[in-house]
Amino acid sequence: MRLRTRDVFTTMRPDLLRVERRVEQAATVDFPVVSSLVLELVRAGGKRLRPLVLLLAGRAYAPDPDVLTAAAAGIELLHTASLVHDDTVDRSSLRRGRPTLNSMLTAGSVILLGDYLFAQSAMLAAATQSPRAVTIFASTLADICDGQLREIFDAHRLDQSRGDYERRIYGKTASLFAGAAEMGALLSHAPESHIAALRAYGSDIGLAFQVIDDILDLREATDDLGKPAGNDLRQGTVTLPTMIYAARLDERSAAAARLRAVVQGENESAEAIDEVVHEIRASSALAETTAYAVELTERAKAHVRICPDQETRSMLEDVADLVWNRSA
Amino acid sequence: MRLRTRDVFTTMRPDLLRVERRVEQAATVDFPVVSSLVLELVRAGGKRLRPLVLLLAGRAYAPDPDVLTAAAAGIELLHTASLVHDDTVDRSSLRRGRPTLNSMLTAGSVILLGDYLFAQSAMLAAATQSPRAVTIFASTLADICDGQLREIFDAHRLDQSRGDYERRIYGKTASLFAGAAEMGALLSHAPESHIAALRAYGSDIGLAFQVIDDILDLREATDDLGKPAGNDLRQGTVTLPTMIYAARLDERSAAAARLRAVVQGENESAEAIDEVVHEIRASSALAETTAYAVELTERAKAHVRICPDQETRSMLEDVADLVWNRSA
Repeated sequence: MRLRTRDVFTTMRPDLLRVERRVEQAATVDFPVVSSLVLELVRAGGKRLRPLVLLLAGRAYAPDPDVLTAAAAGIELLHTASLVHDDTVDRSSLRRGRPTLNSMLTAGSVILLGDYLFAQSAMLAAATQSPRAVTIFASTLADICDGQLREIFDAHRLDQSRGDYERRIYGKTASLFAGAAEMGALLSHAPESHIAALRAYGSDIGLAFQVIDDILDLREATDDLGKPAGNDLRQGTVTLPTMIYAARLDERSAAAARLRAVVQGENESAEAIDEVVHEIRASSALAETTAYAVELTERAKAHVRICPDQETRSMLEDVADLVWNRSA
Repeated sequence: MRLRTRDVFTTMRPDLLRVERRVEQAATVDFPVVSSLVLELVRAGGKRLRPLVLLLAGRAYAPDPDVLTAAAAGIELLHTASLVHDDTVDRSSLRRGRPTLNSMLTAGSVILLGDYLFAQSAMLAAATQSPRAVTIFASTLADICDGQLREIFDAHRLDQSRGDYERRIYGKTASLFAGAAEMGALLSHAPESHIAALRAYGSDIGLAFQVIDDILDLREATDDLGKPAGNDLRQGTVTLPTMIYAARLDERSAAAARLRAVVQGENESAEAIDEVVHEIRASSALAETTAYAVELTERAKAHVRICPDQETRSMLEDVADLVWNRSA
């Protein structure tokens, strides 16, 4: 039975506002023009799901508000820095429908600004005074880079396993949620078994988050990043729905040839990509992928049964559902 | 009186080899092609002056070899990561006469590899188990970015003060030497006054290092990075010799007009840059800048008079001189 008396964002608003102030403070740079661009970027930062996960993971134990605020701000800035570099990698000029730094500054300044935000996020991690929290923080950054590098090196290849896919999206997306949950629990002196369970919770909602993103990329006419449908296919990124669809095809069929041509970058026309997108939509691949995302969120909720406070557990469950609401 | 019985590199070889192994271990990545490129890059890494400064700064106190090795490897990898991004910013295809990662990989992969090396260096900093060392580490990264961003935003401007120049080269180059010395002393439990003096020593040799680099850029036909003379002028970077030279010119003279045209990027021809380089060489600017570098190295040596061990002090003095030998 769930007691959902108040919305998670209402309950957590004071804590999230403290995180917000800390993030803005850390993101302030000494170059007037750049400072306003960076602040705008940081303020446009969506729902703050990662700091929310961190705060909730510590809430049932003995949280020190200052320490958790610093860690949550550090995780959010790490996420921001990583987006800044990711947009440079993709040469994106839009994110969430707004111009990216790439469209306003030279590539060199954007790389350095990303580095500067990394530095500020590391300072916040260090402010927790916990070497173990800093290690989680640093290994999260390593995992993110690993996932993003895998995306580049695995591109244009159909001979990937589901394990390759999961490892890649764990690094790219789930590691930050896992690290956030682990840091929150650790810094609030949760027992080791609870730290591990909360880390697994974070990892599962992060995986679900990315799997749903990969569904949306094929399902929506224009996704919430302002990119057209089939953007992953266009970049040669093979996601789970495409894998499931490919596995059902007769290798010698015309549809299989069309898919190969698009993924391998031999046919980059909008028509070819559209045709493959429609063929994937017409298959059972999106439904099967959705079933996997449901399984991941249920698994995430199972991990937090260990949480000793009922209100906090209920909010952790709500956050697992928020991953879905994003698509609404 | 100096007891210079053994060369500093001979004495410190076992410690430096331990650092080397730790750096190579941390720089190993899971992508075969990339791994060899990164290892090559790390192995080409010059004299390891920054780890040397870190190890020497702790030597007279109570150093724990494992902790100092991790910190020194972290500082060297932070330096490497920063070079990787700096080459991307400059779009350099050569460093120390060898191809950079930029000439072998896409810009996106290079940014991510730099980030991965940052992550590994942060893990090493965290391995010291000292939150204060991690804070020094993170603020060093922030200072480096600040210096590099200043170089971009101050480019093409002759209305800069000597203070602007010093702040910029402190960030870009001296901060890593200062951070290395501070971490070495701190992690070896030196008294606070010694930590501060060693940090000042690191900062001064770092400033001298960059000032000499800026002299070499104008003095040498081809510098040790394989770049032609006047490379700073070509990029619109105003260094100390150029500032000193500019300050002596009559603003209405033809020479002043030539300098402005080159710095402001209005005349980018090789002939125009060569002419300005020759005019700076013919002035007293290089001699005056050299005198400043001498002053910095003497000041660095004065800071380490506090060091309680004579052999270590002597080696710290030798390192201050090494900054000069580089030009030989």
